[in-house]
Amino acid sequence: MRVGIYGLGRFGSFWADTVRRNTRDDIEVVASSRHPHAVPEGVVFLCEDELFATCDVLFFCVAISSFESVLKNMNGRIKKGAVVFDTCSVKTYPAQWMKEYLGDDYTLIASHPMFGPDSAKSGLKGLPIVLCPLNADEKIVQCFTDEFASWGLKVLRMTPLVHDKESAYSQGVTHFVGRTLREMGLRDTEIATSGYKALMTIVDQTCNDPLQLFYDLQRFNPYAKEMRLSLQYATEKILNKLRESEEG
Amino acid sequence: MRVGIYGLGRFGSFWADTVRRNTRDDIEVVASSRHPHAVPEGVVFLCEDELFATCDVLFFCVAISSFESVLKNMNGRIKKGAVVFDTCSVKTYPAQWMKEYLGDDYTLIASHPMFGPDSAKSGLKGLPIVLCPLNADEKIVQCFTDEFASWGLKVLRMTPLVHDKESAYSQGVTHFVGRTLREMGLRDTEIATSGYKALMTIVDQTCNDPLQLFYDLQRFNPYAKEMRLSLQYATEKILNKLRESEEG
Repeated sequence: MRVGIYGLGRFGSFWADTVRRNTRDDIEVVASSRHPHAVPEGVVFLCEDELFATCDVLFFCVAISSFESVLKNMNGRIKKGAVVFDTCSVKTYPAQWMKEYLGDDYTLIASHPMFGPDSAKSGLKGLPIVLCPLNADEKIVQCFTDEFASWGLKVLRMTPLVHDKESAYSQGVTHFVGRTLREMGLRDTEIATSGYKALMTIVDQTCNDPLQLFYDLQRFNPYAKEMRLSLQYATEKILNKLRESEEG
Repeated sequence: MRVGIYGLGRFGSFWADTVRRNTRDDIEVVASSRHPHAVPEGVVFLCEDELFATCDVLFFCVAISSFESVLKNMNGRIKKGAVVFDTCSVKTYPAQWMKEYLGDDYTLIASHPMFGPDSAKSGLKGLPIVLCPLNADEKIVQCFTDEFASWGLKVLRMTPLVHDKESAYSQGVTHFVGRTLREMGLRDTEIATSGYKALMTIVDQTCNDPLQLFYDLQRFNPYAKEMRLSLQYATEKILNKLRESEEG
């Protein structure tokens, strides 16, 4: 069995390494990428056509904003019957694109491993991965559920829309706050409280991810705009309460 | 030697307990409070007049917004020659009030232990305490510096204004973000990323503190308004970048 990763950016390199470390030795892990960030040890680099034509399981690790055009260019190059995963941080649009451009010839499972090189530094145990089966036999989905669970991951199944609503108000708001605080130019101080230190760690982690991921999270999650408005509304409410407390 | 704590709210109770646990047994720790949150074991509760008249070292642990009126009512009730500390989370105004209402009869040291019952749960080691000597012999200041250092604290000396500028952009912004996110009604989710979990911990910690502390931090720190404007400006900048990225 051959498992392929397409896209070796910051997340894709991490994911290829994670797949390699956690699967049986007789499973071959291969990858291809236009701009490889790093090719992890034990992962074989192939040209695109060979990767698509020969993999039984394929993970797309491309930017959300590139994913539709990547799929448009598949033109049946992927091996028939392959199990195809995306790993995008939003799910509604990528799931629609996969169904539209890949269709019935493949087993399609939209997925979101909700961690990355920073958060998985001390292991995978308990980290969540979301699966949204699109066009997949229950048997196959269960097989991958068991596989991911055997790596220590917490496997959660939900619809793309439920994922996007939950994640706009968790991952989405975290990245928005992180980028905003970085924009303020906050820095370390010797009088940092433990709360401020924790906040700075969040700023560092969110800003370690590519800027494109931040834009894509905010742009391609159907609930992101509502979340941002809710944050602005809450800010106004707190400022009003402050004004009232000064007058009172 | 008798050490007194005036004000046994959430922080004062914690501080009385901290003083009791970390000082020698022959030092008597006493306290008084209009609305005691808790009287820690080993701390003797006295009436106000006795506390003020008999303590050699006195810590005021009252709300910033009450501190001026508390000092106005001292009328020489504090034992002459006593060493008087405040513990307010802002320093410029409290330092002015202490000099104005207590004057030359006392050793005055404005202070800010930059931790509380949540952040000191696993010990005091490395936690910062800021000292701003106002009217104090260097020898006495050094003696308290050594005492706090012997508890494991990191003792930092600075002017009230420098403290307030640094803390507006660290503790102040943390509390503002914490209260805002709580106002949004964010809650736990099974797909929480590690960053979001850390953010929720900050929200819980900042909102565990009394609401009055939040208002006072924002109102009595001369740099808080500038910090809030800077946060709003950064938010606008990020929103503009998002709009540009969508158009580009």
